[in-house]
Amino acid sequence: MKKLLTTLVALAVASLAFGQRQHPCLLLTPDGVAEMRAALGTNADFDASVAEVIAEADRGLAEPIVVPVPKDGGGGYTHEKHKDNYYVMYYCGIAWQLTGNEAYAQKVVDMLDAYAALYPSLGFHPVTLSKTPGRIFWQTLNECVWLVHTSIAYDCVYDFIAPEKREQLEKNFFRPYADFVMNGTKENPANNRTFNLMHNHGTWATASVGMLGMVMGDEDIVKQALYGSDKTGKNGGYIMQLDNLLSPDGYYTEGAYYLRYAIWPMMLFAHCIENNLPEVGIFEYRDAILSKAANALLQLNYNGVFMKFNDALTKQLDCQELLFAVDIAYGAYKNPMLLDVAQKFQKKFIPCDAGYEVARDVAAGKAEPIKYESKLYRDGADGSQGGIGVIRSTRPDVNSALTLKATSHGLSHGHYDKLVISYYDNGNVVLPDYGASRFLNIEAKYKGHYTRENKKYAMQTIAHSTVSVDGKSHFDGNYNESSKHHSDVYHFEAVDKLSVMSAKENAAVKGVKMHRTVIYDDVEWLQYPLIVDIFRLESEKEHTYDLPFWYSGHMVSLNFPYTKALTSMTTLGVDNGYQYIWVEAEGRNEQTSTSCYTFLEGDRFYSISTATTPTTEMKMLRLGANDPDYNLRPEGAYMLRQKAANHSFVSTIESHGVYNLQVEKTANAKASVKEVVVLVDNAKYTVVRVDFVGGQSRTYCFANEQTEGKHKVQVDGKTYVWEGAISVK
Amino acid sequence: MKKLLTTLVALAVASLAFGQRQHPCLLLTPDGVAEMRAALGTNADFDASVAEVIAEADRGLAEPIVVPVPKDGGGGYTHEKHKDNYYVMYYCGIAWQLTGNEAYAQKVVDMLDAYAALYPSLGFHPVTLSKTPGRIFWQTLNECVWLVHTSIAYDCVYDFIAPEKREQLEKNFFRPYADFVMNGTKENPANNRTFNLMHNHGTWATASVGMLGMVMGDEDIVKQALYGSDKTGKNGGYIMQLDNLLSPDGYYTEGAYYLRYAIWPMMLFAHCIENNLPEVGIFEYRDAILSKAANALLQLNYNGVFMKFNDALTKQLDCQELLFAVDIAYGAYKNPMLLDVAQKFQKKFIPCDAGYEVARDVAAGKAEPIKYESKLYRDGADGSQGGIGVIRSTRPDVNSALTLKATSHGLSHGHYDKLVISYYDNGNVVLPDYGASRFLNIEAKYKGHYTRENKKYAMQTIAHSTVSVDGKSHFDGNYNESSKHHSDVYHFEAVDKLSVMSAKENAAVKGVKMHRTVIYDDVEWLQYPLIVDIFRLESEKEHTYDLPFWYSGHMVSLNFPYTKALTSMTTLGVDNGYQYIWVEAEGRNEQTSTSCYTFLEGDRFYSISTATTPTTEMKMLRLGANDPDYNLRPEGAYMLRQKAANHSFVSTIESHGVYNLQVEKTANAKASVKEVVVLVDNAKYTVVRVDFVGGQSRTYCFANEQTEGKHKVQVDGKTYVWEGAISVK
Repeated sequence: MKKLLTTLVALAVASLAFGQRQHPCLLLTPDGVAEMRAALGTNADFDASVAEVIAEADRGLAEPIVVPVPKDGGGGYTHEKHKDNYYVMYYCGIAWQLTGNEAYAQKVVDMLDAYAALYPSLGFHPVTLSKTPGRIFWQTLNECVWLVHTSIAYDCVYDFIAPEKREQLEKNFFRPYADFVMNGTKENPANNRTFNLMHNHGTWATASVGMLGMVMGDEDIVKQALYGSDKTGKNGGYIMQLDNLLSPDGYYTEGAYYLRYAIWPMMLFAHCIENNLPEVGIFEYRDAILSKAANALLQLNYNGVFMKFNDALTKQLDCQELLFAVDIAYGAYKNPMLLDVAQKFQKKFIPCDAGYEVARDVAAGKAEPIKYESKLYRDGADGSQGGIGVIRSTRPDVNSALTLKATSHGLSHGHYDKLVISYYDNGNVVLPDYGASRFLNIEAKYKGHYTRENKKYAMQTIAHSTVSVDGKSHFDGNYNESSKHHSDVYHFEAVDKLSVMSAKENAAVKGVKMHRTVIYDDVEWLQYPLIVDIFRLESEKEHTYDLPFWYSGHMVSLNFPYTKALTSMTTLGVDNGYQYIWVEAEGRNEQTSTSCYTFLEGDRFYSISTATTPTTEMKMLRLGANDPDYNLRPEGAYMLRQKAANHSFVSTIESHGVYNLQVEKTANAKASVKEVVVLVDNAKYTVVRVDFVGGQSRTYCFANEQTEGKHKVQVDGKTYVWEGAISVK
Repeated sequence: MKKLLTTLVALAVASLAFGQRQHPCLLLTPDGVAEMRAALGTNADFDASVAEVIAEADRGLAEPIVVPVPKDGGGGYTHEKHKDNYYVMYYCGIAWQLTGNEAYAQKVVDMLDAYAALYPSLGFHPVTLSKTPGRIFWQTLNECVWLVHTSIAYDCVYDFIAPEKREQLEKNFFRPYADFVMNGTKENPANNRTFNLMHNHGTWATASVGMLGMVMGDEDIVKQALYGSDKTGKNGGYIMQLDNLLSPDGYYTEGAYYLRYAIWPMMLFAHCIENNLPEVGIFEYRDAILSKAANALLQLNYNGVFMKFNDALTKQLDCQELLFAVDIAYGAYKNPMLLDVAQKFQKKFIPCDAGYEVARDVAAGKAEPIKYESKLYRDGADGSQGGIGVIRSTRPDVNSALTLKATSHGLSHGHYDKLVISYYDNGNVVLPDYGASRFLNIEAKYKGHYTRENKKYAMQTIAHSTVSVDGKSHFDGNYNESSKHHSDVYHFEAVDKLSVMSAKENAAVKGVKMHRTVIYDDVEWLQYPLIVDIFRLESEKEHTYDLPFWYSGHMVSLNFPYTKALTSMTTLGVDNGYQYIWVEAEGRNEQTSTSCYTFLEGDRFYSISTATTPTTEMKMLRLGANDPDYNLRPEGAYMLRQKAANHSFVSTIESHGVYNLQVEKTANAKASVKEVVVLVDNAKYTVVRVDFVGGQSRTYCFANEQTEGKHKVQVDGKTYVWEGAISVK
């Protein structure tokens, strides 16, 4: 609150100078342009990025201006054309600043004229898939992205346009456009809600309007952008978004995929605020929260691909959003690991002073490799709403990451899965999270939008490697209910040879307490670290507990008899996502007390060994039933089902061996775990012994209620004593 | 025959000097060793390869010698241990030559002693999956590979061992071992058949025994290796294998995957022959046939991965066999494209003079990029048994390859598919050939052998993108019958903008004439070249014709209504491979005369547009039914079924657009072909018009019976006149 007041004061002071600014003042500044122009020819990589800008601008120059009447959804012609148009304006605006060739500036003016001519005639977009429909695009979100780019273009050519013409453009086009983004229409004021919303769409809205306001020198619009429609800073606006959307660890509640998207307007607008209102000290705001967000993105990826949970597609560190985030963040914070992203993944720079700085410092060899670390990312504005933990290997010969998600719901892009794990190893996503069901911008696929199966399957609990109870999703798939709760991180520690994360969830299923603990243990006699996965379920009534492990790769073996569907196949269930899943095979293990599934992914084997009884049902699953439009990918799962009141699924997950076709070498293809024995399992303690085929044993003692102090458990005449949350012997 | 006589004479001469050779005389020679020793320190890459040899030898030194009683199949402990043992001997033998450290030589001697002690006690291997069972390994093939490596090791330490001990080793161990490989046993003389067989197993047998014979200075064994058991050169032996196994284009009848395997002993033995019997002129033999074989390998890959047809797994140019082939071939032929393979894919060199030469010339910048070319590879010893054609893009922005297979059966590794196409584009295998069903050396998967599904599914016609008739495989899956025949290449031409391959098959299905023509056309208004695929079927009786296109990627759209299996799924048939295929969806097109299927693979779209009628059935298929052991990969196909006597499946295959998630750009996601119209289709001519959504048209006139002279066809009052096989307007 103190920060907020300071900022408000700063803005009040800054506003005095608001009418006298020079242009450009958003992405570019007169000094930045001078610096870039001077730098041309000194850095081949930056030159290439500039050449790309010029080439794109030239392509725009060469093409006729077409501003079609809006008709299509994502991926369709008019959608893509309007996207292309804002890129043409953006590139031409920058090219004009860089070259002084008036043709570029004139192109921007001509396109603005074309939009100004069309815009007043537009009602809502004919595609009615969004609650906040746009005019040019099917959703206002795209309208905001359009405005962000176009504001930069307008800023670049501002001085090129005669004042009277500017006034006309602003009055007849830009202000109504901004008003629509800020307030919507009388009939549908939904945009106003979004504008003031604590959501990434809200950030796009505030950034886009705020940037336009800065170009136009409109203090009132800028204030609304920063402090919400009522300008109090209490009910909306960019500053409040920075307070609310990011946790103290820089985590964005929707997940890594949407942090990537949210950080684009966040960083870009911060850059503009710094250029226009340096007194605000936006990059230092909230203990440099934007630096923490950038660091979270550096960490929440595997081999450069953002970790998937909640709604997520396959996006990498080289996506366009991150170009802005990395360059601007480096300009502000000088973190040399950001240079490594630029160097290894992006090899491109945004055409502004920060982009040049990154190119220059990469060339100077200042980059430092991303140091991936084990860390808990707390969720919630104050960090109190659970979190997602990432456990990384510390061995140089192991490239793996294990995550346990125990966050809040994650707004509209959240999924109904508490305590889900994902596992990445050897360059592959071994235990994947499905992410979102969407074919972005492919019109034939539900117009490029999230498909129907996203809500009906991908968001449901069974789509995730966590426990579904009685065939239902967590919170029974009720968004409002799920949004009220969050899991609790019970314990997180990460040391060299042993890392642990443990979290509890008591609200997701009424009457069932869930507690999952994952242990990542670099056992000396194993080739690669072992994961011990303890999923405790406590209830007074009997339930059906389903724990699928969704995996990538090909089935190698099961250590118990199973029956595979040979000539006909049926589904796992009829609702809550179960209806989308074929049952490929099923079996029970009546011979041994540990059931093992081995599969092959890439050139490595993986084995999941679970303590089971003859009452445990094992099923091999395949996604794709009830999917009339081929919207789902045919992924596979190995599922354990137990009918019980209290039950713990205790498994080890091994990475082992090699399958190298080039030298025809197969080694260590069988699991090393012989038996998983649950010695003690009650509310206070869980003690698990793992026996290996080599004759060794390892015992894991875990305190379920209290992570500190001394613990003592007796079983079969043996006494286990330990201190702290965990002991491994 | 003249050549053969020349060689026999040469050998007779050479044999005079046979007893006085120096050691080493196989992979290494005294001069070669001196050259390598002198070169150490001058080439970092070669040094690294030598260091690897030494490291492997040191690993061997550090480990106790274990020569287990044979028990396991491929991938199992004893199998892998005996493999590792020959590597240890091989590396230690070379290390001894390179360093003069006696410990290495002694290790080889000790291991030979251990084998000599065990070997006499061995009967046939307990795993009985092979018709030519070995003693140490489950099949004699591995026994030969063992002997190839061990002969090199023995050669290296030959002078280190006292003559009496050598005599003892040879008498009690090596000669019985060679005898077993050459003759088998009285009870099971199958090895003798293989030794004289025109098959890659035969080459391993002749090479292994021939190499041992050279080390021992045993002229008789060498003669048998070169000229077969009867030493006439008429009934077996390496020279006859060179005459028979390779076509005049260097193609090996089993396919690219097995050429890679066959060329290893071929090249290695040639190297040994050159070192011991240079008078033979082995590298010039049959117009330098070994050079042609090496060139075929340079061409029959896509992005370095060998093209799959017949039995094939995923093998690349960096596989160990090719290290030998590339280095030795370069030593002999100095083709600078071989250096490119060493440089780009292998980055490793075999420890001999040829290996050093490659490393040296790569460092000297002598490598030239592989120039991929369109070419027909004729099959058969005299090139008369059909062939496989490869059509490559010539545009620098297009990386694609289209193949049409019209060969003979391909020995025991051949599949029952005539006139199959495969298509590679943009780094992906867009229309793949399944290859073999095998998990090499994974014991849990049918002991690492070809699985049962290899014969029952992967070899069957329906597993391939060609026409199955009446639900049966070509030649009804009869190996003997199929082996009698081959397809005929009717036409092959490859020019810059237009390439064509056309082939006929009249024996595969009684009473049905098959004729497939693929045209690869760089249409100026399309983003990428268009494939026109004409599959003609002629018969007097009605049949059911099934043409599946097995594809990689995700379904995007079909332009006709279809019904997808939602809650239960059934199989395509009950035998001939059909029983392994689930029917995922089916439909008919009653609205338009062209049916189009669009799918997404990598970041590109592909559309197959086929001229259909409402009687054409379309089915979407998924592999995996009746597969109790999860031996099959869940691949997908789009199948056209037509009941007819005469019928032509005429399709276009388009590559188009982009799906770039990183910049959220989707473009050109829809097919450009609007209609495929078959204007004329009879025994003499096929005329096809393709209409595009942009309003353009293109007409393909093809002469089905005569590729030369003038052709004239009238249809709908229009006259088409052209010269040669094809005309495109």
